[in-house]
Amino acid sequence: MGSSVLSKAQDVGRIEKDLLGEAKVPSEAYYGIQTQRACANFDLSGVKLRHFPELVKALAMVKLACAKANNSLGLLDDSHCEAIDQAAQAIISGNFHGEFVVDMVQGGAGTSTNMNANEVIANVGLEYLGYGKGEYKHLHPNNHVNMSQSTNDAYPTAVRLSILLKHADLVHSLASLRDVFTAKAEEFSDIIKMGRTQLQDAVPMTLGQEFQSFATTLGEDIERIAGLSELLKEINLGGTAIGTGINTDPEYARLAIGHLSEISGFEFKRASDLVEASSDMGAFVLFSSMLKRLAVKLSKIANDLRMLSMGPRCGLNEINLPPQQPGSSIMPGKINPVIPEAVNQVAYQVVGNDLAVTMAAEAGQLQLNAMEPLIAYNVLESIRMLKQSMDMLKNRCVRDITANRDRCQELVDQSIGIITAVVPYIGYENSSRIAKEALASGRGVLELIRDEQLMTEEDLQAVLSPSYMIKPQPRRNS
Amino acid sequence: MGSSVLSKAQDVGRIEKDLLGEAKVPSEAYYGIQTQRACANFDLSGVKLRHFPELVKALAMVKLACAKANNSLGLLDDSHCEAIDQAAQAIISGNFHGEFVVDMVQGGAGTSTNMNANEVIANVGLEYLGYGKGEYKHLHPNNHVNMSQSTNDAYPTAVRLSILLKHADLVHSLASLRDVFTAKAEEFSDIIKMGRTQLQDAVPMTLGQEFQSFATTLGEDIERIAGLSELLKEINLGGTAIGTGINTDPEYARLAIGHLSEISGFEFKRASDLVEASSDMGAFVLFSSMLKRLAVKLSKIANDLRMLSMGPRCGLNEINLPPQQPGSSIMPGKINPVIPEAVNQVAYQVVGNDLAVTMAAEAGQLQLNAMEPLIAYNVLESIRMLKQSMDMLKNRCVRDITANRDRCQELVDQSIGIITAVVPYIGYENSSRIAKEALASGRGVLELIRDEQLMTEEDLQAVLSPSYMIKPQPRRNS
Amino acid sequence: MGSSVLSKAQDVGRIEKDLLGEAKVPSEAYYGIQTQRACANFDLSGVKLRHFPELVKALAMVKLACAKANNSLGLLDDSHCEAIDQAAQAIISGNFHGEFVVDMVQGGAGTSTNMNANEVIANVGLEYLGYGKGEYKHLHPNNHVNMSQSTNDAYPTAVRLSILLKHADLVHSLASLRDVFTAKAEEFSDIIKMGRTQLQDAVPMTLGQEFQSFATTLGEDIERIAGLSELLKEINLGGTAIGTGINTDPEYARLAIGHLSEISGFEFKRASDLVEASSDMGAFVLFSSMLKRLAVKLSKIANDLRMLSMGPRCGLNEINLPPQQPGSSIMPGKINPVIPEAVNQVAYQVVGNDLAVTMAAEAGQLQLNAMEPLIAYNVLESIRMLKQSMDMLKNRCVRDITANRDRCQELVDQSIGIITAVVPYIGYENSSRIAKEALASGRGVLELIRDEQLMTEEDLQAVLSPSYMIKPQPRRNS
Amino acid sequence: MGSSVLSKAQDVGRIEKDLLGEAKVPSEAYYGIQTQRACANFDLSGVKLRHFPELVKALAMVKLACAKANNSLGLLDDSHCEAIDQAAQAIISGNFHGEFVVDMVQGGAGTSTNMNANEVIANVGLEYLGYGKGEYKHLHPNNHVNMSQSTNDAYPTAVRLSILLKHADLVHSLASLRDVFTAKAEEFSDIIKMGRTQLQDAVPMTLGQEFQSFATTLGEDIERIAGLSELLKEINLGGTAIGTGINTDPEYARLAIGHLSEISGFEFKRASDLVEASSDMGAFVLFSSMLKRLAVKLSKIANDLRMLSMGPRCGLNEINLPPQQPGSSIMPGKINPVIPEAVNQVAYQVVGNDLAVTMAAEAGQLQLNAMEPLIAYNVLESIRMLKQSMDMLKNRCVRDITANRDRCQELVDQSIGIITAVVPYIGYENSSRIAKEALASGRGVLELIRDEQLMTEEDLQAVLSPSYMIKPQPRRNS
Repeated sequence: MGSSVLSKAQDVGRIEKDLLGEAKVPSEAYYGIQTQRACANFDLSGVKLRHFPELVKALAMVKLACAKANNSLGLLDDSHCEAIDQAAQAIISGNFHGEFVVDMVQGGAGTSTNMNANEVIANVGLEYLGYGKGEYKHLHPNNHVNMSQSTNDAYPTAVRLSILLKHADLVHSLASLRDVFTAKAEEFSDIIKMGRTQLQDAVPMTLGQEFQSFATTLGEDIERIAGLSELLKEINLGGTAIGTGINTDPEYARLAIGHLSEISGFEFKRASDLVEASSDMGAFVLFSSMLKRLAVKLSKIANDLRMLSMGPRCGLNEINLPPQQPGSSIMPGKINPVIPEAVNQVAYQVVGNDLAVTMAAEAGQLQLNAMEPLIAYNVLESIRMLKQSMDMLKNRCVRDITANRDRCQELVDQSIGIITAVVPYIGYENSSRIAKEALASGRGVLELIRDEQLMTEEDLQAVLSPSYMIKPQPRRNS
Repeated sequence: MGSSVLSKAQDVGRIEKDLLGEAKVPSEAYYGIQTQRACANFDLSGVKLRHFPELVKALAMVKLACAKANNSLGLLDDSHCEAIDQAAQAIISGNFHGEFVVDMVQGGAGTSTNMNANEVIANVGLEYLGYGKGEYKHLHPNNHVNMSQSTNDAYPTAVRLSILLKHADLVHSLASLRDVFTAKAEEFSDIIKMGRTQLQDAVPMTLGQEFQSFATTLGEDIERIAGLSELLKEINLGGTAIGTGINTDPEYARLAIGHLSEISGFEFKRASDLVEASSDMGAFVLFSSMLKRLAVKLSKIANDLRMLSMGPRCGLNEINLPPQQPGSSIMPGKINPVIPEAVNQVAYQVVGNDLAVTMAAEAGQLQLNAMEPLIAYNVLESIRMLKQSMDMLKNRCVRDITANRDRCQELVDQSIGIITAVVPYIGYENSSRIAKEALASGRGVLELIRDEQLMTEEDLQAVLSPSYMIKPQPRRNS
Repeated sequence: MGSSVLSKAQDVGRIEKDLLGEAKVPSEAYYGIQTQRACANFDLSGVKLRHFPELVKALAMVKLACAKANNSLGLLDDSHCEAIDQAAQAIISGNFHGEFVVDMVQGGAGTSTNMNANEVIANVGLEYLGYGKGEYKHLHPNNHVNMSQSTNDAYPTAVRLSILLKHADLVHSLASLRDVFTAKAEEFSDIIKMGRTQLQDAVPMTLGQEFQSFATTLGEDIERIAGLSELLKEINLGGTAIGTGINTDPEYARLAIGHLSEISGFEFKRASDLVEASSDMGAFVLFSSMLKRLAVKLSKIANDLRMLSMGPRCGLNEINLPPQQPGSSIMPGKINPVIPEAVNQVAYQVVGNDLAVTMAAEAGQLQLNAMEPLIAYNVLESIRMLKQSMDMLKNRCVRDITANRDRCQELVDQSIGIITAVVPYIGYENSSRIAKEALASGRGVLELIRDEQLMTEEDLQAVLSPSYMIKPQPRRNS
Repeated sequence: MGSSVLSKAQDVGRIEKDLLGEAKVPSEAYYGIQTQRACANFDLSGVKLRHFPELVKALAMVKLACAKANNSLGLLDDSHCEAIDQAAQAIISGNFHGEFVVDMVQGGAGTSTNMNANEVIANVGLEYLGYGKGEYKHLHPNNHVNMSQSTNDAYPTAVRLSILLKHADLVHSLASLRDVFTAKAEEFSDIIKMGRTQLQDAVPMTLGQEFQSFATTLGEDIERIAGLSELLKEINLGGTAIGTGINTDPEYARLAIGHLSEISGFEFKRASDLVEASSDMGAFVLFSSMLKRLAVKLSKIANDLRMLSMGPRCGLNEINLPPQQPGSSIMPGKINPVIPEAVNQVAYQVVGNDLAVTMAAEAGQLQLNAMEPLIAYNVLESIRMLKQSMDMLKNRCVRDITANRDRCQELVDQSIGIITAVVPYIGYENSSRIAKEALASGRGVLELIRDEQLMTEEDLQAVLSPSYMIKPQPRRNS
């Protein structure tokens, strides 16, 4: 890809120049020579910046905030600032995203991403000012658009902002999924079924309790994600190259961060130690770990849904997942739990992505972490896949799950685990003996206790009623 | 090991009995038949419960809290409660830990651990009551010690408590290490050195700023660990087998949790959904991830210390790590950075342990996670190793690091990166040109700018002074 | 995406029908109703089957081989076989790849991928036979194209074949990179430099030896990849649904595998236990691990290249990486090792992908592993990224690396580590003492030994000459 | 621990001396000052070298082989060689292992381990020669025992040898487990049951086929482990510090490796590129990955065993695992699949350990990998845990599994999946329709086909007989 961009550039286009020399850039391109070099260098993931619109917008917001700060400090004149503002706003509104062509996976600690943004904004701004693309003396990618900035503060800030922008979607999908589980819990609140621990019959519960537990566990993660996203609001803008703030005015950081908060709607605050903040990936590591935790929970839920719907004839068959596609190219009539299976796979990918984030974070050296592009890519991709998979799970599975009430009841009726409820009355050893006998003989627990007259019939009836067993009960004193 | 315990039991000892039949238990053992079976079943990690005293103590605290709750509900009579209290207090004081002999890695979702505690407490309590070991009709491991409990609520509660007990050590070591870095930062606050990004010369900073960044990044984790440890205070005690609270009084959970808070000094609260809480490992996953984050930070710091001390003659050699042992069996005089190398290795182990936790958490099924023993083992082990490695890093390395002030200065003086400071005055392109020329010719940046008379001598002197470059500066208007 | 396909389908198109009912499929589409349902179900990775041409081709080869086997068994008549042949050949030649639109990450154990292939081949075949798309009674996706097959044998076979097809590229890039390192090793064969262990000065070597070690370590992986790819040639074709071979003729498996070997050029063999082979992901796990090993090696090499080129003024600076792009948006003249940095990031991603493969493999249940699509995706993606990154490393970095001969020599000259060579003559303890003194005093090792007259001048000169130190030497007997 | 060793040393003992100065070593200790420093430095894993007897023996074998080579080159005189021989043989026979006290996790790339071996052998040898411990002028840890060696070749060689020594146990346990599965497969060869794909009813098979697949999949790993262990036989002995062979005679490497082969019984060969071999961890990475593959397979088998034995009343209940311990502290009579659960946990730990190995391998720098101790620890520990868990699985679970023949038959009889067998006769669409109707109406598949007279009764009987369905069959032509 990179190479095709480059070769096209050799035919026609404007000449641009940088530290390494001159190169032709396609006339129609708003990006410039450095973006073009980056495209030629990196063709790795095949996923370009524009694949994540939140990142593109976040870059524009950062550039705009810095321009405003520079302007109010008298370092950037009004017309330059206005041009940058126009260009940035256009990008924030969704335009020019096609010009963000660098691969998400790139060397250079994000410099190529930052320069892609600087160049596009400069060229869009130049048109606004009435100049041609590439006439950088009127609006320069480095001198004006990147003024008072380094990749090393502008890029991490934009990545944090992009995750904040994107995580709202994630939380929304998570909350919707939770709500559907809550609704199902209500729908199934009077269906008695066997609970199982370690895959062995345990004691009764309602199917509603089971589905409520899915809702609860997801609900907890809404809070956690919100809590951890706060960490992303601590930024190093103003630290420039290594956090010492070289080439910035003492007032600049405060101003730039204030503007960014206003533009984005998030309350950013300056990291207390900008040197530390320049290389620290801790907030990403923890946020990614939180995505991993959500993935693990979703995978557990998907496993349970697949287990409970095993069948249709030779498994638990307590619930039915809605059919979404024929299940087999050879076995007619087979319907498979394809939706939860896909959720599992997304979960495994997210765990794998978290490991990539971890290794990239560990690889930071001295004053910078050069591997941040991989971190940004994996966190954004994990958010995206989790969101998609939760929407899929909600719309194509959970919403239309039905219960097999009679089957659930039948399993409770024939179970041995209900003997647990009589332990407080006849003791653990008597109960064990009877359970063992029931299993060996095939007889029912109730029947055996009755035979031995270990409890009054009244107590027995009460204690072994399903409604008695699904919540705490005071000790009967008969 | 298990087998030797078993064979010894066949020679002499008391007969005990459970669901599977009878077996001899050594006369001197305070544990009982179920513990003995578990030892025979599991010889996997080789690490026994007693390796983690906090876990043993936490088990005793849980048993005591439950006994008190049962007693106040009139379910457990005073003498039984008193016997349990005496036994539990003995264990909390550090006695009988040698009786906790089950392998940390075990099947059964912690039942063997729970029964090990039940049996030891019963037998210690029996002696207090004047009975012999094994006379369980007077104090029964299940009927009395485990009353109103299931492994499925008692064990997770104890694991959470054990982490809370142990994490204080971790935080203490972390804070001490942070403090030593802070002290070093002060000591090195006036040593000017080159900052490096992507391993390339960047711009100047002080060695103090560099060490302060280590202190800051570790300090942040103190807060995070504290924050996440809160999640561990939400417990499912009272949920019993599957969270429905079967076999408990409606008042029991509140009472038991209250007693546990009092005994342990941590403010526990009941999980809002006990069914969810019975199988959810989310708090462990996130806490383990936080340990991973700390590990990643420590590894990055260890990498930096090793890098900065490269040499003594052929590397950066900006700092000296104190020698702790001869470095080579063949190269005389060689001293290696063995302490940070060991920190790196601990960090990789912690990341590996976190993966084991993740996989174990994902493997939960239906109403329980049977893999919780592996989770407990890895979290406790990671805490232990991190603590040990931080103490080692502090005492055997950081405390005695010295700086090579002249070497640091010499590198700054010969660097090109300082040209960054003049960009606001002569522009990015002029600066790039001069940098390139300096590199090619071997001449100094200062000299070249002077030649071209691009700045006044006064500005040049001011802007290129190291103290100017290590913090934000207002634009000079000469 | 899926939804837009679906909605478009509602406007115009042909009606198709499956187990779940009817749906409109766009008239121009060669895929059919099941593919369309899969697109609606899964929008997860955003990466479609067509992204991996080798997989599309492999599917066609499998279908063709099976058709030929069915034909020779008299189960598929000649015209049907010929139609399938034509369609498959077209796909193998690179046509119709745009019709392979299902997401790589999908539930259903690959059924959607298999049906996508069945439907496209049926519809292309129908056109060849003179019928319209969707007239399946003349050539049916299941009855004819999928005859004697199940997703559960056809899909894993195609995935294995696709990896075999793709891995040639990988090995080719790996061999080219190795060759460039070998050439560099020769170029640098007479440059003496300090070797370093644990980042501390060790003993001299040549830069050629260092680069040769990169060549050697990569070269070993060519062999290993070749060796492990053999495992992929063991296939379960003919096992159908669960490996029992239901719905196949006893001769079928042998015939189909023979045809596949002929068509593909790889010598496939039938797994000895088809039931095992239906669910076993072992070959993928090991092959992915091998990719991980290669990634780890590349990352180590990238780290070394970055380390050796640290500078330009304040680091080792032994070699120069060719500049590929300006390195900083703020620091003029800065050039960063962007190419090896990108290699590191690819390596971390591959390690993460390997974990996703591992977890997916572990999640297999009973007679099948439903997570195989994730395995296929990650293995193919890791191969692709590794290949791209090795080409990048070769073309944009290693090929143009230059050495700083004088700098290398200077570092050797001032080093202490050379004292190692005199240990056999003056003993470990004398040597240690002198090394220590050299370090403390700043004096040279040679000088100090001379002062103490511990060796004859002749021996000293000989033993401390660099060419003496870079290989084994007989003990001098002077 | 280290500190207690040290403090004890301050009271009584002999004075030893090294590069860093003097210290007292306990009189009774065979280890020396460097071992003691290492104990003081590293108290991390708590697992000492002696925990892995194979590693201790391997170290002694390497020392012995080198001494013999040095002796035959005339560099080490006969009495020194004989003393080393005696000491090494004693260790190989299992003596003095208690003296190997350094923590497995240590900085220094194994130097502490190597010196622990050098010191113990020197002191044991000194006693043999009639001298006191510490009288190193008569037999010196570095000058004699470590002659012609560096940690950097001696230690990796010993680690490789230790894995080779230990992996025989692993393979033996693996083969035994495989054999028990094979025996069970035979025992269950005529029990017909439903196969399941994606947890949904598929087509019939025998329970014997299912157990045979476990045997087969484990059997494959015997071969793979053997194959990959070959890689460990390529060693860098003779490379010394960085692979250049400094301080060795040109004949030495060949001689030393020859002796080592003879002593150990493994055919070692010299790595073709000793510089590469000094830092390359590739063989460990791949071998550890192979352990991971075995872990994944064991985990899958454990999952299946737990699934198939779900119940006793409310699950599949096709097989019974032998009870090994009471399953619950609250639910009487409950028996849990504790043995396979423990296998799962070991598997997750092994996957985690493999990640630690991977990260340690990636962290190699320049001429050495300083993290090799962590690699050695994790590989040896994974082997140990896998071996223990396979023995446990065999002896305490698989050997005594019983089948519920009637239950298996009953599930087949009521299944719908058997319709797959008639697809070749009535087509995929007819079959789908009937399957759907069977599910909706609760009627049997056989009955419905009969009603519609789609096949002759004779064909129907034949095709739907279980024995017909469990293997390939020629198409019937009635």
